[in-house]
Amino acid sequence: MIQKLIDRIQETGAPIVVGLDPNMKFIPAHIQREAERARRDNIFGDDDLETAAEAVWRFNKEIIDAVYDLIPAVKPQIAMYEQFGIPGLVAYWKTVRYCREKGLIVIGDVKRGDIGSTSESYAIAHLGRISVGGHKVRVFDEDFATVNPYLGSDGVKPFINVCNEEDKGIFVLVKTSNPSSGEFQDVETKDGRPVYELVGEKVREWGELSMDGTYSNVGAVVGATYPEQGRILRKLMPNTYILVPGYGAQGGQGKDLVDFFNEDGLGAIVNSSRGIIAAYQQEKYAKFGEERFAEASRAAVQDMIEDIAGALAAR
Amino acid sequence: MIQKLIDRIQETGAPIVVGLDPNMKFIPAHIQREAERARRDNIFGDDDLETAAEAVWRFNKEIIDAVYDLIPAVKPQIAMYEQFGIPGLVAYWKTVRYCREKGLIVIGDVKRGDIGSTSESYAIAHLGRISVGGHKVRVFDEDFATVNPYLGSDGVKPFINVCNEEDKGIFVLVKTSNPSSGEFQDVETKDGRPVYELVGEKVREWGELSMDGTYSNVGAVVGATYPEQGRILRKLMPNTYILVPGYGAQGGQGKDLVDFFNEDGLGAIVNSSRGIIAAYQQEKYAKFGEERFAEASRAAVQDMIEDIAGALAAR
Repeated sequence: MIQKLIDRIQETGAPIVVGLDPNMKFIPAHIQREAERARRDNIFGDDDLETAAEAVWRFNKEIIDAVYDLIPAVKPQIAMYEQFGIPGLVAYWKTVRYCREKGLIVIGDVKRGDIGSTSESYAIAHLGRISVGGHKVRVFDEDFATVNPYLGSDGVKPFINVCNEEDKGIFVLVKTSNPSSGEFQDVETKDGRPVYELVGEKVREWGELSMDGTYSNVGAVVGATYPEQGRILRKLMPNTYILVPGYGAQGGQGKDLVDFFNEDGLGAIVNSSRGIIAAYQQEKYAKFGEERFAEASRAAVQDMIEDIAGALAAR
Repeated sequence: MIQKLIDRIQETGAPIVVGLDPNMKFIPAHIQREAERARRDNIFGDDDLETAAEAVWRFNKEIIDAVYDLIPAVKPQIAMYEQFGIPGLVAYWKTVRYCREKGLIVIGDVKRGDIGSTSESYAIAHLGRISVGGHKVRVFDEDFATVNPYLGSDGVKPFINVCNEEDKGIFVLVKTSNPSSGEFQDVETKDGRPVYELVGEKVREWGELSMDGTYSNVGAVVGATYPEQGRILRKLMPNTYILVPGYGAQGGQGKDLVDFFNEDGLGAIVNSSRGIIAAYQQEKYAKFGEERFAEASRAAVQDMIEDIAGALAAR
């Protein structure tokens, strides 16, 4: 699967991923009104939940239609859907399916991880197939999932097994982009190295179990907000693709990101979520107006591609 | 919320929680046949997925009806539902609702955790209310959720805020029950202490933000399979309730668990999943037969209560 992602990155010239993390504050009023009008019968408890989820789905669809030809991949953050309950998860499922129909690679930002037998169920849910009624059925069917490593190898390996069976991939959290990520991840161990380096080493080791060309189907998440750690981890995990969140709204910029890439120009893919999907709310893209929010997103994608390509060319 | 859990534990004399982690291998053939007959219109993609989820729900309901008066709480593991996609998550939602109607406290074993703004969405999804259409709607509405600490304070505090607003609780993973939990959790830090102790200290600190009587709404998960670490953590976090998975099928027994409890006989609640819900498959309860699986579960609950009460009395 990682080779498929690399192929798409090379075709588009865009080592970027658009984070589909819809928040009601980002969704223009006219989309919310349309969702209200389109409301079908209430299935799961609350009409307003159905309407909100319908608005999320319509908002996503319009953005996907506006940007899919520019980018290799999207990354829906499942929490933003789970908060709308069952209707929200239906919107997630429809979003994943629609993105795949459009030829996009879908990174499910689910950050799952549990004891072995339970991780196996999560791996099935997101990347695999479940045996029911004598056949195997795909469930959410993302291409990649993000995985939390706190439980160690037996929480991660069930995902790797499914990656090998189904040609899928994962990105394991190594050094996250948030301010408090250092509380446990940066703790210095007895041998003088921080915990995130130990996790990075394990990711390299796990990666060897699922190679796909030069790179592994087992990638890593390292936040754009920690470029120094990014440099260390880049060297520690030479065959690991790094998913880099934290560009834009969380503070990172193209020039801070060059060291996440290998010399071959590969090895990293940079995520931006609200910087793209809520671009119309920024002064820079205000000229598009709320009605043309998806065009603003397209312009923001083009600017992001240029920023990162420029930074890579200038290094 | 923790005081409510303690009250129920004292009323029932049962510091135990039944893990509702249905696996198709546990569900008797007659339940699967009934689910097949009851199948409604296919909503989300696959008939067999709908049938499996319906079987899960029926299986759960029968077990809940058979044991609810004996126990304070249940712990559905969401992965076991997520693997059946949207129909599975509907079964999860119905299970949570039904358990609450029966007066049970529901611990959603979701092991969520992300950067701050995303953790806030997870907290809303599982413990809080989402603002939609000018009012606030409860979503999955468990009483407690399990939380992964790898991202540090800003991944956990949004859950604590919701605990305070909505009178709910969380259990933070500290030392998990699986064989490889030591890979990162036991790593010795520069000052000679393992990572899980640092996490335990943070849990104690976070706990002070949401006290409810003697104990905190911020609990900890410590596996029954690691009694030595349990003893250390018990002392380190005196006002923290410990959720102890790994009893029964994962190897723990009542006598191994006494040190997870405080001198007051409180401070821990022990989970058993397949040991209860698939009791009829054990030789010990085979006399009930597949048809009377729920009665076997009731007998297994009674035996578990006796085992733990006996161990506590004997210490």
